[in-house]
Amino acid sequence: MPTFAEASDDRSETRGTLAEVGEFGLITRVTHDRVQPAGTLLGPGDDAAVVAAPDGRVVACVDVLVDTVHFRLDWSTPEQVGRKAAAANLADVAAMGAVPTALLVGLACPADTPVATLEGLAEGLWAEAGVAGVGVVGGDVASAATLMVSVTALGSLEGRQPVTRGGARPGDVVALCGRIGWSAAGLAVLSRGFRSPVTVVGAHRVPEPPYAAGPQAAKAGATAMIDVSDGLLADLGHIADASGLVLDVRVPEVPDRLAEVGAALGADPVHWLLTGGEDHALAATFPPDIALPDGWTAIGSARAGEPEVLVEGRPYTGGPAGWDHFTR
Amino acid sequence: MPTFAEASDDRSETRGTLAEVGEFGLITRVTHDRVQPAGTLLGPGDDAAVVAAPDGRVVACVDVLVDTVHFRLDWSTPEQVGRKAAAANLADVAAMGAVPTALLVGLACPADTPVATLEGLAEGLWAEAGVAGVGVVGGDVASAATLMVSVTALGSLEGRQPVTRGGARPGDVVALCGRIGWSAAGLAVLSRGFRSPVTVVGAHRVPEPPYAAGPQAAKAGATAMIDVSDGLLADLGHIADASGLVLDVRVPEVPDRLAEVGAALGADPVHWLLTGGEDHALAATFPPDIALPDGWTAIGSARAGEPEVLVEGRPYTGGPAGWDHFTR
Repeated sequence: MPTFAEASDDRSETRGTLAEVGEFGLITRVTHDRVQPAGTLLGPGDDAAVVAAPDGRVVACVDVLVDTVHFRLDWSTPEQVGRKAAAANLADVAAMGAVPTALLVGLACPADTPVATLEGLAEGLWAEAGVAGVGVVGGDVASAATLMVSVTALGSLEGRQPVTRGGARPGDVVALCGRIGWSAAGLAVLSRGFRSPVTVVGAHRVPEPPYAAGPQAAKAGATAMIDVSDGLLADLGHIADASGLVLDVRVPEVPDRLAEVGAALGADPVHWLLTGGEDHALAATFPPDIALPDGWTAIGSARAGEPEVLVEGRPYTGGPAGWDHFTR
Repeated sequence: MPTFAEASDDRSETRGTLAEVGEFGLITRVTHDRVQPAGTLLGPGDDAAVVAAPDGRVVACVDVLVDTVHFRLDWSTPEQVGRKAAAANLADVAAMGAVPTALLVGLACPADTPVATLEGLAEGLWAEAGVAGVGVVGGDVASAATLMVSVTALGSLEGRQPVTRGGARPGDVVALCGRIGWSAAGLAVLSRGFRSPVTVVGAHRVPEPPYAAGPQAAKAGATAMIDVSDGLLADLGHIADASGLVLDVRVPEVPDRLAEVGAALGADPVHWLLTGGEDHALAATFPPDIALPDGWTAIGSARAGEPEVLVEGRPYTGGPAGWDHFTR
């Protein structure tokens, strides 16, 4: 497989830059021949799209990814960046207990961006949308010095109440579905100039959020839920704050692969597990008397007290608990 | 009124930069004390918002505005930029014949952006959302070299069919509601280093789309509709293409103010009227046998033929028909 730089240079010779094909030319290229799911009542090409909202409500959220901040085009292909941008948002919809219904994309990029790069981005957005069963129903593209992708995801609660961050109750079980720490390990590997092991590098490039686990948890009676985008402790902190509770979690078991990578890099894999973001696992609280749905693992419990997150009874002192894009 | 630079320097001393308050600090500042309309079932603060979609469908669109491309912070206050970003999207919802129901905002900006600037942006977004009767229900903020605002608007068709670009029929009347050419005149004024007349400069800084005219036109039986964001001829061109028709329009009457500005700058105001974007007027086609709703003016007619837009029977040769962000 060629590196991204090779691939993009190669293609740009034959397909030109955004400045050459123009805004409308690009939109035509990335929207033609796309098959929309049944819930897309009116797709791209008009002033706005129309999407089904069967229970009379729509879940909506937005995430912004910026070149060199959230991704690097020398570390990831445009397809991988597109998948990651879509995944970050689709996971937010799942974390409300909702099923995704559509994506919209606001793109800003330099006029000399190769069309191949933008086609790759679109390909990735569509690929991840497909994983979640939705289409890209609208978008806009603008000129800017920096490549930026703003993705909006819509979703359906299918008649259920949204599972917010504020519904956890004392005695609830804290549970997790999906990977944590893998993206952080992959980032550590890439930051040292390595490209393998591919499992962790791949996890950083394209997260695999357990979309179906969100609605599944909601149906099972989850009282609060969040997707782990900033790090397990940071995101559980949002549930602790919103619910007004103490959440106490165990030190997670370290997967063999992360232990190996940690040993190779001289890094503590437990830190990745507790503070690494961008894997977009789902964390939720469940009443203690129900069986956790398949794929969910109990990692701790909730109790009354001044809101905080503890690791085996104590504050975590291994470093910043998560990611704030501006202050760290 | 202080210039933006004065105001922002003054406030930044007391309120700091984004890097100082952090992502979550900023979000708290711009979301607290905001009153959401009844249709916002769950507002900001969770993984996603929940918005009413009473007829089981949601209209959705996105627009991206970039510093120095779509606005200049030395020409507009942050409040004005926020209003403009919201207006561009809300007008797209109106152009489907829908009533806006919510906004979401994806923001990227340098870490040293003064909090006052971002609070101003948020103020403007909320102000324009208020004009349209909606709230800002969600958002995200990320670090980037350039300030960019990506706004998503949602809307409700209230049980009606969407008014697309493709429904015009031969014999239809082409009609307009709202101003055209004013923003282009204002831009011409600002580009020459002037700051007045304030009417045209103000029109460039903050458009005043006739939001209510969209649903009104839909109820009256409009067959096609679009908002004039790229220029009258360019946007009518989208209706001509999508409907497979020729649209023939009259040379619009030049408002006195635009005639004065044109004379002062040695520019042709008719060109602004025909090709100037960003006023977000609504252009629509109506069956010939119905009375146009209040505020709508007939400007031409549709007929069968190879799709194109004519001005009094001839192609317009006064220059590019509209705005493509990359090729012109």
